[in-house]
Amino acid sequence: MDKYDKKSPTSFAIGLTVCFEAMEFGTVSKLYLSPELKTGETASRLIEMAKKKNIPVIVNNQKIFKSLSGKDNVMAIAEFLKQDEKLDPSSPHCLLVNPMNMGNMGTIIRSCLAFGVKDLAIVKPAADCFDPKVIRGSMGAFFRLRIAHFSAFEEYRKAYPEHNLYPFMLQAKKYLSETKFKSPATLIFGNEAKGLDRSYLEVGEPVLIKISGELDSLNLDNAVSIGLYELSKAI
Amino acid sequence: MDKYDKKSPTSFAIGLTVCFEAMEFGTVSKLYLSPELKTGETASRLIEMAKKKNIPVIVNNQKIFKSLSGKDNVMAIAEFLKQDEKLDPSSPHCLLVNPMNMGNMGTIIRSCLAFGVKDLAIVKPAADCFDPKVIRGSMGAFFRLRIAHFSAFEEYRKAYPEHNLYPFMLQAKKYLSETKFKSPATLIFGNEAKGLDRSYLEVGEPVLIKISGELDSLNLDNAVSIGLYELSKAI
Repeated sequence: MDKYDKKSPTSFAIGLTVCFEAMEFGTVSKLYLSPELKTGETASRLIEMAKKKNIPVIVNNQKIFKSLSGKDNVMAIAEFLKQDEKLDPSSPHCLLVNPMNMGNMGTIIRSCLAFGVKDLAIVKPAADCFDPKVIRGSMGAFFRLRIAHFSAFEEYRKAYPEHNLYPFMLQAKKYLSETKFKSPATLIFGNEAKGLDRSYLEVGEPVLIKISGELDSLNLDNAVSIGLYELSKAI
Repeated sequence: MDKYDKKSPTSFAIGLTVCFEAMEFGTVSKLYLSPELKTGETASRLIEMAKKKNIPVIVNNQKIFKSLSGKDNVMAIAEFLKQDEKLDPSSPHCLLVNPMNMGNMGTIIRSCLAFGVKDLAIVKPAADCFDPKVIRGSMGAFFRLRIAHFSAFEEYRKAYPEHNLYPFMLQAKKYLSETKFKSPATLIFGNEAKGLDRSYLEVGEPVLIKISGELDSLNLDNAVSIGLYELSKAI
Protein backbone atom coordinates (compact mmCIF):
# COMPACT_ATOMS: atom_id res chain seq x y z
CA MET A 1 0.00 0.00 0.00
CA ASP A 2 1.41 3.38 -0.90
CA LYS A 3 -1.60 5.65 -0.59
CA TYR A 4 -3.90 6.26 2.34
CA ASP A 5 -7.22 4.51 2.17
CA LYS A 6 -9.89 5.18 4.76
CA LYS A 7 -10.81 1.49 4.76
CA SER A 8 -7.29 0.19 5.21
CA PRO A 9 -6.25 -1.15 8.65
CA THR A 10 -3.14 1.06 8.55
CA SER A 11 -2.35 4.74 8.10
CA PHE A 12 0.78 6.90 7.87
CA ALA A 13 2.73 9.21 10.11
CA ILE A 14 4.47 11.68 7.81
CA GLY A 15 7.62 13.61 8.70
CA LEU A 16 10.43 13.08 11.19
CA THR A 17 8.82 14.44 14.35
CA VAL A 18 5.58 12.57 13.75
CA CYS A 19 7.50 9.34 12.96
CA PHE A 20 9.35 9.53 16.27
CA GLU A 21 6.04 9.97 18.09
CA ALA A 22 4.49 7.07 16.17
CA MET A 23 7.35 4.71 16.98
CA GLU A 24 7.41 5.73 20.62
CA PHE A 25 3.67 5.60 21.30
CA GLY A 26 1.96 3.87 18.35
CA THR A 27 2.06 0.45 16.70
CA VAL A 28 4.32 0.95 13.70
CA SER A 29 4.61 -1.86 11.12
CA LYS A 30 7.08 -0.23 8.71
CA LEU A 31 9.38 2.74 8.60
CA TYR A 32 10.08 4.27 5.17
CA LEU A 33 13.11 6.50 4.79
CA SER A 34 13.54 8.91 1.90
CA PRO A 35 16.63 8.32 -0.25
CA GLU A 36 17.26 12.03 0.37
CA LEU A 37 17.55 11.61 4.14
CA LYS A 38 21.14 12.53 4.93
CA THR A 39 23.11 10.30 7.21
CA GLY A 40 23.54 12.05 10.52
CA GLU A 41 22.32 12.10 14.07
CA THR A 42 18.59 12.18 13.29
CA ALA A 43 18.79 9.35 10.76
CA SER A 44 20.83 7.22 13.15
CA ARG A 45 18.44 7.86 16.01
CA LEU A 46 15.49 6.89 13.81
CA ILE A 47 17.12 3.67 12.56
CA GLU A 48 18.29 2.69 16.02
CA MET A 49 14.80 3.16 17.41
CA ALA A 50 13.33 1.02 14.61
CA LYS A 51 15.87 -1.71 15.33
CA LYS A 52 15.07 -1.68 19.03
CA LYS A 53 11.36 -2.00 18.29
CA ASN A 54 11.81 -4.60 15.52
CA ILE A 55 10.32 -2.32 12.90
CA PRO A 56 11.41 -3.08 9.31
CA VAL A 57 13.12 -0.11 7.66
CA ILE A 58 12.51 0.40 3.93
CA VAL A 59 14.70 2.76 1.94
CA ASN A 60 13.84 2.16 -1.69
CA ASN A 61 10.22 3.16 -1.95
CA GLN A 62 10.10 6.56 -3.66
CA LYS A 63 6.52 5.95 -4.71
CA ILE A 64 5.21 6.26 -1.17
CA PHE A 65 6.99 9.60 -0.70
CA LYS A 66 5.57 10.86 -3.99
CA SER A 67 2.03 9.91 -3.11
CA LEU A 68 2.04 11.02 0.54
CA SER A 69 4.40 14.02 0.78
CA GLY A 70 2.36 16.64 -1.06
CA LYS A 71 4.38 19.81 -1.51
CA ASP A 72 6.66 19.12 1.44
CA ASN A 73 10.08 17.59 1.49
CA VAL A 74 9.42 14.56 3.67
CA MET A 75 12.29 12.47 5.04
CA ALA A 76 10.43 9.66 6.83
CA ILE A 77 7.05 7.96 6.85
CA ALA A 78 5.86 5.42 9.41
CA GLU A 79 3.02 3.02 8.60
CA PHE A 80 1.01 2.32 11.72
CA LEU A 81 -1.96 0.25 12.81
CA LYS A 82 -5.25 2.10 13.17
CA GLN A 83 -6.89 1.02 16.37
CA ASP A 84 -9.42 2.20 18.90
CA GLU A 85 -8.36 2.16 22.50
CA LYS A 86 -10.23 1.83 25.77
CA LEU A 87 -10.52 5.18 27.48
CA ASP A 88 -9.38 5.55 31.05
CA PRO A 89 -12.57 5.39 33.16
CA SER A 90 -11.18 7.71 35.84
CA SER A 91 -9.52 10.40 33.70
CA PRO A 92 -11.09 13.49 32.11
CA HIS A 93 -12.48 12.97 28.61
CA CYS A 94 -13.13 15.14 25.60
CA LEU A 95 -16.11 13.98 23.52
CA LEU A 96 -16.67 15.22 19.97
CA VAL A 97 -20.09 14.57 18.46
CA ASN A 98 -19.94 14.35 14.66
CA PRO A 99 -16.85 16.50 14.03
CA MET A 100 -16.44 16.86 10.27
CA ASN A 101 -13.35 18.99 9.69
CA MET A 102 -9.97 17.26 9.60
CA GLY A 103 -8.06 20.48 10.18
CA ASN A 104 -9.98 21.03 13.42
CA MET A 105 -9.43 17.42 14.46
CA GLY A 106 -5.62 17.67 14.38
CA THR A 107 -5.64 20.90 16.35
CA ILE A 108 -8.12 19.54 18.89
CA ILE A 109 -5.95 16.48 19.48
CA ARG A 110 -3.02 18.81 20.13
CA SER A 111 -5.09 20.89 22.56
CA CYS A 112 -6.22 17.77 24.42
CA LEU A 113 -2.62 16.80 25.06
CA ALA A 114 -1.70 20.40 25.91
CA PHE A 115 -4.28 20.53 28.68
CA GLY A 116 -3.76 17.06 30.07
CA VAL A 117 -6.84 15.37 28.59
CA LYS A 118 -5.46 12.14 27.16
CA ASP A 119 -8.78 10.46 26.38
CA LEU A 120 -10.74 11.47 23.29
CA ALA A 121 -14.13 10.00 22.41
CA ILE A 122 -15.66 10.53 18.97
CA VAL A 123 -19.31 9.91 18.08
CA LYS A 124 -19.72 8.84 14.45
CA PRO A 125 -20.32 9.88 11.70
CA ALA A 126 -17.13 11.88 11.95
CA ALA A 127 -14.08 12.97 9.98
CA ASP A 128 -11.47 10.20 9.81
CA CYS A 129 -9.12 10.88 12.70
CA PHE A 130 -6.64 8.35 11.30
CA ASP A 131 -6.13 10.35 8.12
CA PRO A 132 -2.45 11.29 7.68
CA LYS A 133 -3.53 14.97 7.50
CA VAL A 134 -5.03 14.74 11.00
CA ILE A 135 -2.00 12.91 12.40
CA ARG A 136 0.27 15.55 10.93
CA GLY A 137 -1.94 18.44 12.06
CA SER A 138 -1.72 17.05 15.58
CA MET A 139 2.08 17.13 15.24
CA GLY A 140 2.10 13.56 16.47
CA ALA A 141 0.11 14.30 19.64
CA PHE A 142 -2.33 11.75 18.20
CA PHE A 143 -0.11 8.89 19.40
CA ARG A 144 -0.13 10.07 23.01
CA LEU A 145 -3.92 10.02 23.34
CA ARG A 146 -6.33 7.16 23.79
CA ILE A 147 -8.99 7.59 21.10
CA ALA A 148 -12.25 5.64 20.93
CA HIS A 149 -15.22 5.80 18.54
CA PHE A 150 -18.88 5.33 19.40
CA SER A 151 -21.88 4.92 17.17
CA ALA A 152 -24.05 7.12 19.40
CA PHE A 153 -23.78 9.31 22.47
CA GLU A 154 -25.78 6.75 24.49
CA GLU A 155 -23.15 4.13 23.77
CA TYR A 156 -20.46 6.39 25.22
CA ARG A 157 -22.69 7.20 28.20
CA LYS A 158 -23.17 3.52 29.03
CA ALA A 159 -19.46 2.77 28.73
CA TYR A 160 -18.45 5.59 31.11
CA PRO A 161 -21.37 6.12 33.48
CA GLU A 162 -19.24 7.72 36.19
CA HIS A 163 -18.29 10.77 34.15
CA ASN A 164 -19.79 14.17 34.85
CA LEU A 165 -20.98 15.59 31.56
CA TYR A 166 -20.49 19.17 30.35
CA PRO A 167 -22.05 19.78 26.93
CA PHE A 168 -20.88 23.08 25.39
CA MET A 169 -23.95 24.80 23.93
CA LEU A 170 -25.03 28.25 22.85
CA GLN A 171 -28.38 27.59 24.55
CA ALA A 172 -26.77 26.82 27.93
CA LYS A 173 -27.53 29.16 30.82
CA LYS A 174 -24.32 28.78 32.82
CA TYR A 175 -21.06 30.40 31.77
CA LEU A 176 -17.88 28.39 31.51
CA SER A 177 -16.15 30.77 33.92
CA GLU A 178 -18.74 29.94 36.61
CA THR A 179 -18.64 26.19 36.06
CA LYS A 180 -17.03 24.06 38.76
CA PHE A 181 -15.93 20.88 37.06
CA LYS A 182 -16.39 17.66 39.02
CA SER A 183 -14.00 14.77 38.34
CA PRO A 184 -14.01 12.77 36.21
CA ALA A 185 -15.34 15.29 33.70
CA THR A 186 -16.32 14.90 30.05
CA LEU A 187 -16.42 18.04 27.92
CA ILE A 188 -18.82 17.52 25.01
CA PHE A 189 -18.69 19.50 21.75
CA GLY A 190 -20.98 19.29 18.73
CA ASN A 191 -20.51 19.50 15.00
CA GLU A 192 -18.79 22.56 13.44
CA ALA A 193 -21.89 23.83 11.69
CA LYS A 194 -24.72 22.79 13.97
CA GLY A 195 -23.30 22.38 17.46
CA LEU A 196 -25.11 19.98 19.81
CA ASP A 197 -28.84 19.52 19.40
CA ARG A 198 -31.22 20.72 22.11
CA SER A 199 -31.53 17.27 23.67
CA TYR A 200 -28.11 17.84 25.26
CA LEU A 201 -29.67 20.55 27.44
CA GLU A 202 -30.93 17.62 29.53
CA VAL A 203 -27.47 16.09 29.76
CA GLY A 204 -25.23 16.88 32.73
CA GLU A 205 -24.45 20.55 33.19
CA PRO A 206 -24.55 22.52 29.92
CA VAL A 207 -21.87 25.19 29.56
CA LEU A 208 -21.76 28.44 27.57
CA ILE A 209 -18.63 30.29 26.51
CA LYS A 210 -19.60 33.94 26.80
CA ILE A 211 -19.02 35.77 23.53
CA SER A 212 -20.07 39.03 21.94
CA GLY A 213 -23.55 39.28 20.46
CA GLU A 214 -21.91 40.38 17.20
CA LEU A 215 -20.91 36.79 16.45
CA ASP A 216 -22.85 33.53 16.18
CA SER A 217 -20.26 31.20 17.63
CA LEU A 218 -16.58 30.39 18.00
CA ASN A 219 -14.59 28.15 15.72
CA LEU A 220 -14.87 24.57 17.06
CA ASP A 221 -11.19 24.10 17.80
CA ASN A 222 -11.08 27.43 19.64
CA ALA A 223 -14.10 26.51 21.74
CA VAL A 224 -12.52 23.16 22.61
CA SER A 225 -9.19 24.72 23.53
CA ILE A 226 -10.88 27.26 25.80
CA GLY A 227 -12.98 24.53 27.46
CA LEU A 228 -9.94 22.33 28.02
CA TYR A 229 -7.92 25.30 29.28
CA GLU A 230 -10.54 25.99 31.98
CA LEU A 231 -10.80 22.30 32.82
CA SER A 232 -7.02 22.10 33.22
CA LYS A 233 -7.24 24.65 36.04
CA ALA A 234 -9.51 22.25 37.92
CA ILE A 235 -7.67 18.96 37.38
CA MET B 1 -10.29 43.10 -12.08
CA ASP B 2 -11.63 39.60 -11.63
CA LYS B 3 -8.91 37.92 -9.58
CA TYR B 4 -7.42 38.85 -6.26
CA ASP B 5 -4.05 40.53 -6.43
CA LYS B 6 -2.11 41.31 -3.26
CA LYS B 7 -1.02 44.62 -4.74
CA SER B 8 -4.46 45.76 -5.81
CA PRO B 9 -6.21 48.45 -3.74
CA THR B 10 -9.33 46.27 -3.55
CA SER B 11 -10.21 42.75 -2.42
CA PHE B 12 -13.31 40.57 -2.38
CA ALA B 13 -15.87 39.43 0.15
CA ILE B 14 -17.16 36.07 -1.07
CA GLY B 15 -20.53 34.58 -0.16
CA LEU B 16 -23.82 36.03 1.03
CA THR B 17 -23.08 36.39 4.75
CA VAL B 18 -19.71 37.97 4.14
CA CYS B 19 -21.19 40.34 1.52
CA PHE B 20 -23.77 41.58 3.99
CA GLU B 21 -21.02 42.25 6.54
CA ALA B 22 -18.90 44.01 3.91
CA MET B 23 -21.74 46.29 2.83
CA GLU B 24 -22.72 47.10 6.39
CA PHE B 25 -19.24 47.75 7.81
CA GLY B 26 -16.80 48.01 4.90
CA THR B 27 -16.29 50.26 1.88
CA VAL B 28 -17.78 48.29 -0.99
CA SER B 29 -17.29 49.57 -4.55
CA LYS B 30 -19.20 46.87 -6.46
CA LEU B 31 -21.58 44.04 -5.73
CA TYR B 32 -21.53 41.06 -8.09
CA LEU B 33 -24.52 38.73 -8.11
CA SER B 34 -24.38 35.24 -9.55
CA PRO B 35 -26.83 34.57 -12.40
CA GLU B 36 -27.79 31.54 -10.29
CA LEU B 37 -28.96 33.65 -7.35
CA LYS B 38 -32.67 33.00 -7.09
CA THR B 39 -34.98 35.92 -6.63
CA GLY B 40 -36.31 35.87 -3.13
CA GLU B 41 -35.98 37.55 0.22
CA THR B 42 -32.18 37.33 0.48
CA ALA B 43 -31.59 38.65 -3.04
CA SER B 44 -34.02 41.51 -2.47
CA ARG B 45 -32.42 42.43 0.82
CA LEU B 46 -28.97 42.43 -0.78
CA ILE B 47 -30.06 44.59 -3.73
CA GLU B 48 -31.97 46.99 -1.52
CA MET B 49 -28.92 47.43 0.72
CA ALA B 50 -26.72 48.10 -2.31
CA LYS B 51 -29.20 50.70 -3.55
CA LYS B 52 -29.31 52.46 -0.19
CA LYS B 53 -25.51 52.62 -0.08
CA ASN B 54 -25.15 53.61 -3.76
CA ILE B 55 -23.22 50.46 -4.60
CA PRO B 56 -23.37 49.41 -8.28
CA VAL B 57 -24.81 45.90 -8.73
CA ILE B 58 -23.36 43.77 -11.53
CA VAL B 59 -25.15 40.63 -12.66
CA ASN B 60 -23.40 39.54 -15.84
CA ASN B 61 -19.88 38.76 -14.74
CA GLN B 62 -19.59 34.97 -14.59
CA LYS B 63 -15.81 35.24 -14.90
CA ILE B 64 -15.41 36.66 -11.42
CA PHE B 65 -17.45 33.83 -9.92
CA LYS B 66 -15.36 31.28 -11.80
CA SER B 67 -12.09 32.74 -10.64
CA LEU B 68 -13.02 33.43 -7.00
CA SER B 69 -15.54 30.77 -5.98
CA GLY B 70 -13.29 27.71 -5.83
CA LYS B 71 -15.33 24.58 -5.24
CA ASP B 72 -18.20 26.41 -3.58
CA ASN B 73 -21.43 27.57 -5.05
CA VAL B 74 -21.14 31.31 -4.44
CA MET B 75 -24.12 33.61 -4.92
CA ALA B 76 -22.60 37.05 -4.28
CA ILE B 77 -19.22 38.77 -4.25
CA ALA B 78 -18.52 42.27 -2.95
CA GLU B 79 -15.44 44.18 -4.07
CA PHE B 80 -14.19 46.38 -1.25
CA LEU B 81 -11.45 48.89 -0.58
CA LYS B 82 -8.45 47.61 1.37
CA GLN B 83 -7.57 50.15 4.01
CA ASP B 84 -5.78 50.42 7.30
CA GLU B 85 -7.68 52.05 10.10
CA LYS B 86 -6.63 53.99 13.17
CA LEU B 87 -6.94 51.81 16.25
CA ASP B 88 -8.92 53.08 19.22
CA PRO B 89 -6.31 54.39 21.71
CA SER B 90 -8.43 53.50 24.74
CA SER B 91 -9.69 50.04 23.76
CA PRO B 92 -7.96 46.66 24.21
CA HIS B 93 -5.76 45.58 21.30
CA CYS B 94 -4.54 42.30 19.90
CA LEU B 95 -1.08 42.56 18.30
CA LEU B 96 0.23 39.85 15.96
CA VAL B 97 3.94 39.93 15.19
CA ASN B 98 4.72 38.35 11.79
CA PRO B 99 1.75 35.98 11.53
CA MET B 100 2.22 33.88 8.40
CA ASN B 101 -0.76 31.55 8.16
CA MET B 102 -3.92 32.83 6.47
CA GLY B 103 -6.09 30.13 8.02
CA ASN B 104 -5.05 31.26 11.49
CA MET B 105 -5.61 34.90 10.58
CA GLY B 106 -9.28 34.43 9.72
CA THR B 107 -9.94 32.48 12.90
CA ILE B 108 -8.06 35.00 15.03
CA ILE B 109 -10.12 37.86 13.60
CA ARG B 110 -13.25 35.92 14.53
CA SER B 111 -11.94 35.32 18.07
CA CYS B 112 -11.12 39.02 18.48
CA LEU B 113 -14.69 39.95 17.71
CA ALA B 114 -16.00 37.11 19.89
CA PHE B 115 -14.16 38.43 22.94
CA GLY B 116 -14.80 42.12 22.38
CA VAL B 117 -11.37 43.11 21.07
CA LYS B 118 -12.17 45.23 18.02
CA ASP B 119 -8.67 46.54 17.36
CA LEU B 120 -6.10 44.33 15.66
CA ALA B 121 -2.50 45.43 15.03
CA ILE B 122 -0.24 43.48 12.70
CA VAL B 123 3.54 43.83 12.51
CA LYS B 124 4.88 43.10 9.01
CA PRO B 125 6.06 40.97 7.31
CA ALA B 126 2.77 39.13 7.69
CA ALA B 127 0.23 37.06 5.79
CA ASP B 128 -2.08 39.26 3.74
CA CYS B 129 -5.10 39.88 5.96
CA PHE B 130 -7.03 41.30 3.00
CA ASP B 131 -6.86 38.03 1.08
CA PRO B 132 -10.40 36.77 0.29
CA LYS B 133 -9.52 33.51 2.10
CA VAL B 134 -8.89 35.41 5.33
CA ILE B 135 -12.05 37.50 4.96
CA ARG B 136 -14.04 34.34 4.38
CA GLY B 137 -12.33 32.45 7.20
CA SER B 138 -13.33 35.29 9.52
CA MET B 139 -16.93 34.84 8.34
CA GLY B 140 -17.03 38.56 7.74
CA ALA B 141 -15.90 39.49 11.28
CA PHE B 142 -13.04 41.23 9.44
CA PHE B 143 -15.32 44.16 8.62
CA ARG B 144 -16.23 44.80 12.24
CA LEU B 145 -12.63 45.22 13.41
CA ARG B 146 -10.23 48.12 13.04
CA ILE B 147 -7.05 46.66 11.56
CA ALA B 148 -3.72 48.50 11.28
CA HIS B 149 -0.31 47.42 10.02
CA PHE B 150 3.07 48.45 11.43
CA SER B 151 6.55 47.96 10.04
CA ALA B 152 7.99 47.20 13.47
CA PHE B 153 6.88 46.66 17.05
CA GLU B 154 8.47 49.98 18.05
CA GLU B 155 6.24 51.82 15.60
CA TYR B 156 3.16 50.31 17.25
CA ARG B 157 4.57 51.11 20.69
CA LYS B 158 5.03 54.78 19.83
CA ALA B 159 1.57 55.08 18.34
CA TYR B 160 -0.15 53.62 21.42
CA PRO B 161 2.10 54.44 24.39
CA GLU B 162 -0.71 54.15 26.96
CA HIS B 163 -1.32 50.45 26.39
CA ASN B 164 -0.21 47.85 28.93
CA LEU B 165 1.63 45.14 27.05
CA TYR B 166 1.23 41.39 27.57
CA PRO B 167 3.51 39.35 25.32
CA PHE B 168 2.57 35.65 25.24
CA MET B 169 5.79 33.64 25.51
CA LEU B 170 6.89 30.15 26.46
CA GLN B 171 9.77 31.72 28.41
CA ALA B 172 7.45 33.88 30.55
CA LYS B 173 7.33 33.19 34.27
CA LYS B 174 3.79 34.28 35.04
CA TYR B 175 0.80 32.14 34.13
CA LEU B 176 -2.11 33.62 32.21
CA SER B 177 -4.50 32.51 34.96
CA GLU B 178 -2.58 34.67 37.49
CA THR B 179 -2.31 37.72 35.26
CA LYS B 180 -4.39 40.76 36.18
CA PHE B 181 -4.88 42.72 33.01
CA LYS B 182 -4.71 46.51 33.30
CA SER B 183 -6.70 48.60 30.81
CA PRO B 184 -6.06 49.38 28.07
CA ALA B 185 -4.32 46.06 27.42
CA THR B 186 -2.49 44.78 24.35
CA LEU B 187 -2.06 41.03 24.00
CA ILE B 188 0.98 40.28 21.85
CA PHE B 189 1.51 37.01 19.95
CA GLY B 190 4.46 35.93 17.82
CA ASN B 191 4.87 33.98 14.63
CA GLU B 192 3.41 30.45 14.30
CA ALA B 193 6.77 28.70 14.13
CA LYS B 194 9.03 30.85 16.27
CA GLY B 195 6.84 32.75 18.72
CA LEU B 196 8.16 36.06 20.03
CA ASP B 197 11.90 36.51 20.34
CA ARG B 198 13.50 36.86 23.79
CA SER B 199 13.63 40.65 23.58
CA TYR B 200 9.92 40.67 24.40
CA LEU B 201 10.74 39.37 27.89
CA GLU B 202 11.66 43.02 28.62
CA VAL B 203 8.32 44.26 27.28
CA GLY B 204 5.42 44.81 29.68
CA GLU B 205 4.31 41.72 31.58
CA PRO B 206 5.08 38.47 29.72
CA VAL B 207 2.42 35.77 30.02
CA LEU B 208 2.58 31.99 29.80
CA ILE B 209 -0.32 29.66 29.02
CA LYS B 210 0.34 26.63 31.20
CA ILE B 211 0.45 23.46 29.12
CA SER B 212 1.64 19.89 29.51
CA GLY B 213 5.36 19.19 29.19
CA GLU B 214 4.47 16.63 26.53
CA LEU B 215 3.88 19.38 23.99
CA ASP B 216 6.03 22.26 22.70
CA SER B 217 3.32 24.82 22.24
CA LEU B 218 -0.29 25.49 21.30
CA ASN B 219 -1.55 26.30 17.83
CA LEU B 220 -1.37 30.10 17.40
CA ASP B 221 -5.09 30.64 16.95
CA ASN B 222 -5.83 28.54 20.04
CA ALA B 223 -3.34 30.53 22.11
CA VAL B 224 -4.89 33.78 20.92
CA SER B 225 -8.42 32.64 21.65
CA ILE B 226 -7.48 31.55 25.17
CA GLY B 227 -5.67 34.85 25.81
CA LEU B 228 -8.63 36.87 24.54
CA TYR B 229 -11.05 34.73 26.53
CA GLU B 230 -9.21 35.51 29.77
CA LEU B 231 -8.94 39.19 28.84
CA SER B 232 -12.68 39.32 28.18
CA LYS B 233 -13.29 38.39 31.82
CA ALA B 234 -11.40 41.52 32.85
CA ILE B 235 -12.87 44.08 30.42
